[in-house]
Amino acid sequence: MPFKTSWVASANSARTDFPLDNLPYGVFSSAGAAPRCGVAIGDMILDAATAETLGLLTLPGGPLLQAGSWNAVMAAGPATWEALRDRLGALLAEGAPEAEALADLLVPQAEATLHLPFTVTEYTDFYASKNHAMNVGTMFRGPENALPPNWLSIPIGYNGRASSVVVSGTDVVRPWGQLKGPNDDLPRFAPCARFDLELEMGAIVGQPSSGMVSVAEADQMIFGYVLLNDWSARDVQAWEYQPLGPFQAKATATTISPWIVTRAALEPFRTATPERERPLLPYLSEPGPMLYDIALEVSLTPEGGAETVIARTNYDQMYYSAAQQLCHHTTSGCSMRVGDLLGSGTISGTTKDSRGSLLELSWGGKEPLTLPDGTPRSFLEDGDTLTLRGAAQGDGYRIGFGACTGKVLPAIDLPDWAH
Amino acid sequence: MPFKTSWVASANSARTDFPLDNLPYGVFSSAGAAPRCGVAIGDMILDAATAETLGLLTLPGGPLLQAGSWNAVMAAGPATWEALRDRLGALLAEGAPEAEALADLLVPQAEATLHLPFTVTEYTDFYASKNHAMNVGTMFRGPENALPPNWLSIPIGYNGRASSVVVSGTDVVRPWGQLKGPNDDLPRFAPCARFDLELEMGAIVGQPSSGMVSVAEADQMIFGYVLLNDWSARDVQAWEYQPLGPFQAKATATTISPWIVTRAALEPFRTATPERERPLLPYLSEPGPMLYDIALEVSLTPEGGAETVIARTNYDQMYYSAAQQLCHHTTSGCSMRVGDLLGSGTISGTTKDSRGSLLELSWGGKEPLTLPDGTPRSFLEDGDTLTLRGAAQGDGYRIGFGACTGKVLPAIDLPDWAH
Repeated sequence: MPFKTSWVASANSARTDFPLDNLPYGVFSSAGAAPRCGVAIGDMILDAATAETLGLLTLPGGPLLQAGSWNAVMAAGPATWEALRDRLGALLAEGAPEAEALADLLVPQAEATLHLPFTVTEYTDFYASKNHAMNVGTMFRGPENALPPNWLSIPIGYNGRASSVVVSGTDVVRPWGQLKGPNDDLPRFAPCARFDLELEMGAIVGQPSSGMVSVAEADQMIFGYVLLNDWSARDVQAWEYQPLGPFQAKATATTISPWIVTRAALEPFRTATPERERPLLPYLSEPGPMLYDIALEVSLTPEGGAETVIARTNYDQMYYSAAQQLCHHTTSGCSMRVGDLLGSGTISGTTKDSRGSLLELSWGGKEPLTLPDGTPRSFLEDGDTLTLRGAAQGDGYRIGFGACTGKVLPAIDLPDWAH
Repeated sequence: MPFKTSWVASANSARTDFPLDNLPYGVFSSAGAAPRCGVAIGDMILDAATAETLGLLTLPGGPLLQAGSWNAVMAAGPATWEALRDRLGALLAEGAPEAEALADLLVPQAEATLHLPFTVTEYTDFYASKNHAMNVGTMFRGPENALPPNWLSIPIGYNGRASSVVVSGTDVVRPWGQLKGPNDDLPRFAPCARFDLELEMGAIVGQPSSGMVSVAEADQMIFGYVLLNDWSARDVQAWEYQPLGPFQAKATATTISPWIVTRAALEPFRTATPERERPLLPYLSEPGPMLYDIALEVSLTPEGGAETVIARTNYDQMYYSAAQQLCHHTTSGCSMRVGDLLGSGTISGTTKDSRGSLLELSWGGKEPLTLPDGTPRSFLEDGDTLTLRGAAQGDGYRIGFGACTGKVLPAIDLPDWAH
């Protein structure tokens, strides 16, 4: 049973991702209308933009919900975040006097199209699950040199490409790229043959900074979290990434789930990062638990086939928290802005079935998975649909993220000049 | 003698960066007014925003000059770019009937504050001068392994941080970072001790793309160029950059010159990239000359001391052009947007005095420069002012960029939690 019951009946199910304790923020459109801010509740969406227009949801410094993104709410700051969550909780609670008026503003999720919930300002991706780093390092450099020397001291990150971030449901076209096998003399330009997913969480920066911030301050700057699939062209990456890091291998698409689950909703599920194998520098020390206990899974659905879960893990497997990553991001004096997105890095557990990428699950293609229909899978095939799911499990309720899906389409034919 | 003479007398000097053939675009403020779009002409700025308001500069789809940035003009597309340049050329030419009205809209550059001329959407930095790559590679890996195996096939790039891009004249505070010397067991958190400049050109993307574009299309997407100094914390970079590339080492600041010199103004100075040492893949072949003959120099002014030129080189020293870089950037399907900024990578010539970074000029600190006052310089000291200058030399006129300067301020004191 959820903490609190809602007059929206479907929100009271123990199985919904969106009980009254969640109240995640998205942007939706329906019946040809322009995209607008909404709040998921059970299997419905509350049209929060219209609620604001009608005076049912008045925010300090508002209106804040009329732009088709949640950036203005984020920019308004933590007092507004709290006021909004409190007000939404009251409006949607069992017995709310506004229930009758608000019932007209509910749109079934099944009838809505979901859009990016915020404008992504800049996108940074990290490499902060130790199991993932060990797996990848072992494949490429052997078990003794698996972990780079800096890994236990730095939450390693690199800048990604904000223009490539798309919302769940967006098709992903297999990229072309420069490929060179270990026995090839020269590279060729061809469609990626080792296209992969990466299971990650995304942290959304809701407040700006200039100058360095502490881990505690960084934590408070985070507005919320999404699921994130950082699609990766492994063969492109292998040839391009030395010495300056991944570039086009990561620029095809990064898919995020459509609902921003707020930090406030996740508070009951805080958990600590693991014991340190090497002491961290003082600036990275955490004043409290900064991870969250969020069960995660990856499923694969071949064209016309059945959905199969291929990995299960948990966000608590991270070695570094998003707050530590954000703090480290500011050490150089780098300014952070509202709408910056930080990918956690691929999240892998300790067991084979808890690995967050096909690169790891198939051990570089040497141990292909076998799908229920008997076909092998080392990397993604055209027509495959990937789905990430995640939820924090409360006592009789869950704080879920909704699905983060994407279907792989065949590479396009390129004009003659390209090859 | 310039091609064309202007009624703004200072624009007719052979020494000005801003003759009538240049007409670069900036954003300025003066006398407490809000930043607005302006055009440099001689030692003056034409207040283009007010000219538009007064109906002297009417653009298709306008008004386009009222937002304090040139992004709207860029987004309007090549026909508008051409119409604007033609109109400005006519308005500012000797004998223009509008001269008297426009004379009231001239502001001396000496009295104006310059701002970022455009909103930087995303920032990508490349590594595309072969001399630079050879120098750095030789220092780190020896002459035989200097050039990474992919270098002659890929215009190597990595994503930088748009929030760190600042306009010329902005002070740059020496960053803190994780540092670990080769003989240290563990890293420490301390101010950067090897702070450096990088002499680069920046290409500004003026038209969006989705899907891959050809080199010819990429060239036409470029609106203009600026000088660019990619400040670099070499000691931070050395410890952090494996395996995913530079991150905080490059996030303190990237300074650009304040005037966007249009591609149109640079057309007479096109020159070809060098002969290929390894054939390029067809998609990277150039349909014509894609570099520009732009003489570049770096000067250093110690606190209270004299300005000394420490390097002279030319943009024609690049192995890859900005058009090739932009084309490669789209191979993965990565969308480009109006306001994206591409750094060329450090530009170094073949001789010792033509190297575009102190890392190279002082050979990693082993061969410090000696300044005129007798002090040595391996890396930047607090109080040093760095200035980049650049110009294409025509017959009796020059297409200049103005100065790109920044002064290094001491690292800040960090609170106790940081160390």
